[in-house]
Amino acid sequence: MNGAQALLHTLADAGVEVCFSNPGTSEMHFVAALDTEPRMRAVLCLFEGVATGAADGYARMAGKPAATLLHLGCGLGNGLANLHNARKGKVPIVNIVGDHATYHTQYDAQLQSDIETVARNVSPGFVRTAQSTAQLGHDAADAVQAARGLPGQVATLILPADVSWSEGGAPCPMPTQPAPEAASASAVAAIAQVLQSGAKAALLLGPQALREPGLLAAARIAQACGVQLLSEVFPTRMERGAGLPLIERIAYLAELASVQLAPLEHLVLVDAKSPVSFFAYPGKASDLVPPGCQVHTLSTPAQDAVASLERLAAALGASQVTPRLQAPQRPERPRGLLTAPKVCKAVGHLLPEGAILIDEAITSGLMLYSMTAGGPRHDLITLTGGAIGQGLPNAVGAAIACPERPVIALIGDGTAMYTIQALWSMARENLHVVSIIFNNASYSVLNVELERVGAEEAGPKAQSQLDLKGPVLNFSQLAQGMGVHAVRARTAEDFCQALEYALAHPGPHLIEAMVPESLAGAKRKVLPWLLKSLHHLPPSVAQALKRKIAP
Amino acid sequence: MNGAQALLHTLADAGVEVCFSNPGTSEMHFVAALDTEPRMRAVLCLFEGVATGAADGYARMAGKPAATLLHLGCGLGNGLANLHNARKGKVPIVNIVGDHATYHTQYDAQLQSDIETVARNVSPGFVRTAQSTAQLGHDAADAVQAARGLPGQVATLILPADVSWSEGGAPCPMPTQPAPEAASASAVAAIAQVLQSGAKAALLLGPQALREPGLLAAARIAQACGVQLLSEVFPTRMERGAGLPLIERIAYLAELASVQLAPLEHLVLVDAKSPVSFFAYPGKASDLVPPGCQVHTLSTPAQDAVASLERLAAALGASQVTPRLQAPQRPERPRGLLTAPKVCKAVGHLLPEGAILIDEAITSGLMLYSMTAGGPRHDLITLTGGAIGQGLPNAVGAAIACPERPVIALIGDGTAMYTIQALWSMARENLHVVSIIFNNASYSVLNVELERVGAEEAGPKAQSQLDLKGPVLNFSQLAQGMGVHAVRARTAEDFCQALEYALAHPGPHLIEAMVPESLAGAKRKVLPWLLKSLHHLPPSVAQALKRKIAP
Repeated sequence: MNGAQALLHTLADAGVEVCFSNPGTSEMHFVAALDTEPRMRAVLCLFEGVATGAADGYARMAGKPAATLLHLGCGLGNGLANLHNARKGKVPIVNIVGDHATYHTQYDAQLQSDIETVARNVSPGFVRTAQSTAQLGHDAADAVQAARGLPGQVATLILPADVSWSEGGAPCPMPTQPAPEAASASAVAAIAQVLQSGAKAALLLGPQALREPGLLAAARIAQACGVQLLSEVFPTRMERGAGLPLIERIAYLAELASVQLAPLEHLVLVDAKSPVSFFAYPGKASDLVPPGCQVHTLSTPAQDAVASLERLAAALGASQVTPRLQAPQRPERPRGLLTAPKVCKAVGHLLPEGAILIDEAITSGLMLYSMTAGGPRHDLITLTGGAIGQGLPNAVGAAIACPERPVIALIGDGTAMYTIQALWSMARENLHVVSIIFNNASYSVLNVELERVGAEEAGPKAQSQLDLKGPVLNFSQLAQGMGVHAVRARTAEDFCQALEYALAHPGPHLIEAMVPESLAGAKRKVLPWLLKSLHHLPPSVAQALKRKIAP
Repeated sequence: MNGAQALLHTLADAGVEVCFSNPGTSEMHFVAALDTEPRMRAVLCLFEGVATGAADGYARMAGKPAATLLHLGCGLGNGLANLHNARKGKVPIVNIVGDHATYHTQYDAQLQSDIETVARNVSPGFVRTAQSTAQLGHDAADAVQAARGLPGQVATLILPADVSWSEGGAPCPMPTQPAPEAASASAVAAIAQVLQSGAKAALLLGPQALREPGLLAAARIAQACGVQLLSEVFPTRMERGAGLPLIERIAYLAELASVQLAPLEHLVLVDAKSPVSFFAYPGKASDLVPPGCQVHTLSTPAQDAVASLERLAAALGASQVTPRLQAPQRPERPRGLLTAPKVCKAVGHLLPEGAILIDEAITSGLMLYSMTAGGPRHDLITLTGGAIGQGLPNAVGAAIACPERPVIALIGDGTAMYTIQALWSMARENLHVVSIIFNNASYSVLNVELERVGAEEAGPKAQSQLDLKGPVLNFSQLAQGMGVHAVRARTAEDFCQALEYALAHPGPHLIEAMVPESLAGAKRKVLPWLLKSLHHLPPSVAQALKRKIAP
């Protein structure tokens, strides 16, 4: 058995069943070994950013890692952005990067680079270059264990070609994964005391706490103590819809998040990070925790968040409390000329049971969260690390993890172009993904950002860097060129019809929503836009702003 | 004057006139400052790999660096592969990467990463994070100086948002660039003695030596001493065609390169690297220098190669020798069903004066080099670092550097998909680029590589990782979706007509050449394919193989 075969058998024994691949010469023995391991599915991607983003989306939905297969340091470089998103979302990935044969690196051939250095940022916890075929099985088992521990992480295993092709490999059984600890009794008691004090408090819920068990425990606590339930700006995966508690997301814009968090005296972190501004802005604070608010940690990302929440609920006598759950509620079917909010409304109106919603439409998707809140139960995946180009690859992975569930990905036009090659994998694997592209011919968010950073006097050259006109992209043609059924919609009626058709016909579809720039009014002033946009906002922010407008 | 304005003025003063950009929020002040510097052209790219590859192609043709503008560590990651190609080609680039404000990094916001680490591989000689607005002009001048010294390099300047937006910037004049040295008299004398010994020798010419002055000096030496003239496998930029000396390239396949280099007793490096195999293969040597062959260095990449060659010619009394130059010669117009060799033949038949040829069609483009050898004078750009996705972005940059010259880019289908977004920039900037995509629905080179690494028993899963069928990509639709005029050609007649039309109508065009897999015969055995392909081969290889076949 050669190294590649031992590696594949070890992965399959550990439950790693899918490999998202973009191989080159140094990975040919891994490729050849695929046929010796029937439990491993190989999904070819035409660009490494698709492979890494698909592995990310797969793990978010499957709850276990997939492998990638990348070609040396440059292939890893192409995959870095989506590995970054996975890292920030604490998502497990077994990231396999082929390398030159160990004896070949000394010659500094054309593709030579220091792969460990390239991997350092996205795999701070596990980067290993396999040194021998005999040890490769152990290396693979260690990588899987590192990836799927708490917090989940990107474990990078670098695979020299000769370690892969040499004989003498042996599969390695997985070591026992240590069970994570829950919050200590003293931490629970201290936080229980804070929550019972009557002070204004919120639980900030991270990835582990956003699935049903965590959500229900948190909602019982909220019901018992009146605390607010918040999620991070960009949740890794959130279960939501009618029958689950409604969680308020921290707003993307620091100006709004400040309003949202202002009343808080205590913020309790549950597998979450204390909130900070996405970017820095001149004269504005980076730390979003309001002055005087105390931050407490119920559980770190290395601890068991659900068990910690349940302990906290028990300490509060809330284990049997009936939590407040979201009632079923759908928006009306939209009509007339298509706009970005109408797209969100249509998705809310037609959302099928068990859908996987992927939101990478930062400005155009603003209303998606509220429009789908009372829809049938679904999952929401968002842009955890802020590196755009995540959504379409995530959709590939999510659809492979959950073949029986429809995937609906809402993607901005600028964003879509980073990893547009994902459409081909959707077609090749015949995945039930509806990709909705908001075509407003603009890097819309940057128009806002240009003003937010105080650079208001944008001349024509500056403006040219933010618009996607001349030529306007035709995503329907791009999709068709990759074998994906696609239509353009300019009215809400056409859009609804296209979405109904797509949902009724399993397989990949793309709907290009031709919409006006949703933040057109924001170019001159952010405040008027905010005021116009109350219905886009988290409820607590909208209420606070209403009070400001009409005092 | 804020930092961004000082940076832009410093760059423009230093002759950096184009910025290939893909900005985000942290770069908004740089974007806003563009309108304060009329000498700086900003070219928006929809993906960072396009921006970095365009900067590479620009510098190869302009002979001076362009700037990039990338968004934090993830943007840099997306641009790494083409920066790697630039580094391997010794191409100057001023690589500007925006970062969070200096005081914001402590908060580990979503897009936070260690940018210097990401940059380390591609910018080993110059990575600097600007620390103050007052110093930013100096930092920029240092970056330009580092980039355009010998050897050319990628100089990465990391630009924190507050360094960019704060007041107190001042443009900085360029320090004097030290003149590079030529080979020492003793080195020249020693090599002259070797070349006059009558032993079989070759000059291996790197980037500096492949422009007219170096080529003519080398050809005089060859004429005087009977040495062979070779170039590296993938030259950065080579001037060639009728009226210039013909240079034989070292073959990509190590099996062929070994045959090609076998007779040599001396190999003289001129701004070149001693030849090594692109990849390692089981049981095959990595070092391609034949046993007993001595390697000499006339000039290192840090030295002046042209002056060194001229000194060597003088030492050999060859300064006034008439060099042997390529005679004008074109292939016939091809006819019948289109194949990859016929595409190369058609390009050779129709090649216009002053064209810039970009070759990133590793298997399908095999005949391009011989078919264009006697065409009108042109430049050839190739895949220096082996990281695919270079060609289309290079074409963007080359066309911006030389707006009066037609650019013809020959690209494999697999390769094209890595940076397909380049087509949009061609349309937006109305560049005279003819992109020729070989659509054979296969990662053709990997079929050969699978066998070469000894992994011959490829099952269906392995094969599925190498083919691009199901669905076959439609590059014409992809191009049209990005605003580029495009046609598919299935016959040589259609192809020639499409190429004539494209060359006669300035602006971007894409011709999708529908061809059978060119190495189909190689799937079972590489040798029969090699034997069939003598006309693809460097002359010395073809002669040696002919002797082997018919002894």
